[in-house]
Amino acid sequence: MRSTQEILRETKAAAPALALASPERKNALLLSIADSLMAHEASILAANARDIEAAREKLGPVMIDRLTLTPARIAAIAEGVREVAALPDPVGKELSRVTRPNGLVIRKVSVPLGVIAMIYESRPNVTSDAAALALKAGSAMVLRGGKEAFASNAAIVEAIHDGLQKAGFPPALVSLVEDRTRQSAMDLMTAAGFIDLLIPRGSAGLIRACVENAKVPCIQTGTGICHIYADASADIDQALAIIDNAKTSRPSVCNAMEVLLVHRDIAAALLPRLKERLVDARQARGLTPVEFRLDARAAQYIPGKLAGKNDFDTEFLDYILAVAVVDSLEEALAHIARHSTGHSEAILTRDETAAERFTRAVDSAAVYVNASTRFTDGGEFGLGCEMGISTQKLHARGPMGLEELTTYKYVVMGNGQVR
Amino acid sequence: MRSTQEILRETKAAAPALALASPERKNALLLSIADSLMAHEASILAANARDIEAAREKLGPVMIDRLTLTPARIAAIAEGVREVAALPDPVGKELSRVTRPNGLVIRKVSVPLGVIAMIYESRPNVTSDAAALALKAGSAMVLRGGKEAFASNAAIVEAIHDGLQKAGFPPALVSLVEDRTRQSAMDLMTAAGFIDLLIPRGSAGLIRACVENAKVPCIQTGTGICHIYADASADIDQALAIIDNAKTSRPSVCNAMEVLLVHRDIAAALLPRLKERLVDARQARGLTPVEFRLDARAAQYIPGKLAGKNDFDTEFLDYILAVAVVDSLEEALAHIARHSTGHSEAILTRDETAAERFTRAVDSAAVYVNASTRFTDGGEFGLGCEMGISTQKLHARGPMGLEELTTYKYVVMGNGQVR
Repeated sequence: MRSTQEILRETKAAAPALALASPERKNALLLSIADSLMAHEASILAANARDIEAAREKLGPVMIDRLTLTPARIAAIAEGVREVAALPDPVGKELSRVTRPNGLVIRKVSVPLGVIAMIYESRPNVTSDAAALALKAGSAMVLRGGKEAFASNAAIVEAIHDGLQKAGFPPALVSLVEDRTRQSAMDLMTAAGFIDLLIPRGSAGLIRACVENAKVPCIQTGTGICHIYADASADIDQALAIIDNAKTSRPSVCNAMEVLLVHRDIAAALLPRLKERLVDARQARGLTPVEFRLDARAAQYIPGKLAGKNDFDTEFLDYILAVAVVDSLEEALAHIARHSTGHSEAILTRDETAAERFTRAVDSAAVYVNASTRFTDGGEFGLGCEMGISTQKLHARGPMGLEELTTYKYVVMGNGQVR
Repeated sequence: MRSTQEILRETKAAAPALALASPERKNALLLSIADSLMAHEASILAANARDIEAAREKLGPVMIDRLTLTPARIAAIAEGVREVAALPDPVGKELSRVTRPNGLVIRKVSVPLGVIAMIYESRPNVTSDAAALALKAGSAMVLRGGKEAFASNAAIVEAIHDGLQKAGFPPALVSLVEDRTRQSAMDLMTAAGFIDLLIPRGSAGLIRACVENAKVPCIQTGTGICHIYADASADIDQALAIIDNAKTSRPSVCNAMEVLLVHRDIAAALLPRLKERLVDARQARGLTPVEFRLDARAAQYIPGKLAGKNDFDTEFLDYILAVAVVDSLEEALAHIARHSTGHSEAILTRDETAAERFTRAVDSAAVYVNASTRFTDGGEFGLGCEMGISTQKLHARGPMGLEELTTYKYVVMGNGQVR
């Protein structure tokens, strides 16, 4: 086993070869990797079978499904890499240009970060998705996947190495951390000087560990306690459709809603119909009904469990919805300021003044008027891809696309200027 | 004494009052602060006299001068605040806008960070400069100055409080940390959830302590081991003028050069004339001569101390210059990659291919062709101001102006869209 430090040294040393490559060479590289993933289908499937065999007793059927690769899924992974090749190149863009009175021409130009590292869990498709985005952005990539997917990830990275070599690039541009203990995550967090950006993608515990321990630049992703506030003037039918979608279309993801705040003036009209739609109608159709966690006022309108102490601070990621009734928009704003994780919040209203006040006052990556929070996503925002959703304010906020995976430098042309 | 935690809670609670203020109200606030600084002249001078009295035995004359305030300096401080008011407002700018096929209108809008904190040393003018920039950018500011300037800083912050109150804003928008022990710096570094951006400005030791300990988003500033590479084709007269300026115009600042790399083909023509200019001519004019730290090859051309083990990794901030002779541009690039702190580097050349290779390959915040590294500065770059010079790659790189003190959010307008 190579140590994580050794891997980081090699990756850092390899990075300049890619940083200076032309867009055409980078795209040829990505197509070479896509071909190689297809050519390695058999070995990737065999490795995946070993992972599944080892995980069968430990993981539930949903997690096993997330872990499982098939010929169709490998083809989709390869296609994803080809789609990244087709995106506009984020490197070498002139972001600004000024000519100063002394004749200096100062250009601000987008350049690669250098080495990007990611710590992530289960799904092996993330391995090639992330590597493809980093390479397109001109950066080397160090991957530290979940231990359940280790054999699958290793086989995918082997295919990527093959693709790198065939395109004339050093294989060390994409590295998989070999140490499967928790120590290797800590090694990445503390590798100052070797990692230009660390992205933790996974549980709240992982994100917290990064905040606590990271000595390298780090972007927190993903934790989403998303609120929807139904204002006094909300269109009830539209509100029901949006809340249903935000809660039940995919409750396990970070842009799913967790908390509904309802203005007292529409609580009587909205909440009983919401209960009918999210509980009774779903039950009748054989779907998992939504469980409520109600504050005392919401409980006056619909049946359900009373909210406990932490229910307004929990990312349920499940068919559970916390509901509170508020007296005013201001009370909703105060609640959100106290409990939000800064991911996505929405107001449902027909009142433009309320919409304006809400979008200005809510300090989150994405703030919606009359739409589902589920749209916070690189593809839905038109970025063409996504490396994660930042919930911090520095460098990147919300969905991170290729631009957010670059930095810039100033290139200054003179003819003898001194100060 | 109020605890640092208590101060942070109050500042965070005050921040939204400013974040939502109009550009006009923010500018009126800054003018009110400028007036108040003038009105408090007597109390600021009295406090400054106490600081100087206490520091007289501990600090040398240069540091005492940096610490000293006069009526003229206070007027300049107030004028600096007025100049910040006159800059364009960085908040509320539409950075991008797309209408998606489903009708969602997604706007990316610049917004305030929230709470900015700064840890800095000596010069009391930084106190009001930094506060003015933060307020203009819509953020509250927590200041932790050097203990030598504590009374001066406290008097300046009292004047700022007066200006805040007269303009109808809560004084807690600008806070001075009261605990003067090292613990308060650590308290700021670890105040996750209370500080959106921490800027350490000062010694390399302070920056290192932030990298080691910070649990809040942090931008490293200032350490500059700046290189100039004199290529084989450099114009010798121009090279001499640029090197002289970069080394001697103000050696104590981070954009001053520390290391000269000379192509072997011009070493014989350049180095003796450089020694004449930086040593003999300066001595003849009664100026401090530059001391050399020479590698073995440079020592064949000029007299001077041989470079020790660390001389190519030292930010001298003094009339000292490390000099090495290299065989090629590639050797210069390799040296810079190994020893640079990523601040500013320059190539002196008449060869466009060499200039292009250098500006692409050098991974620093500012890369110059035929100009002095001393231009890396917010004012010189046309930003109108500067909060420090970032040597990291995330969020801000090089001089940080008002734009770099903001973040953004996505505001999404829908009419019932679900996913």
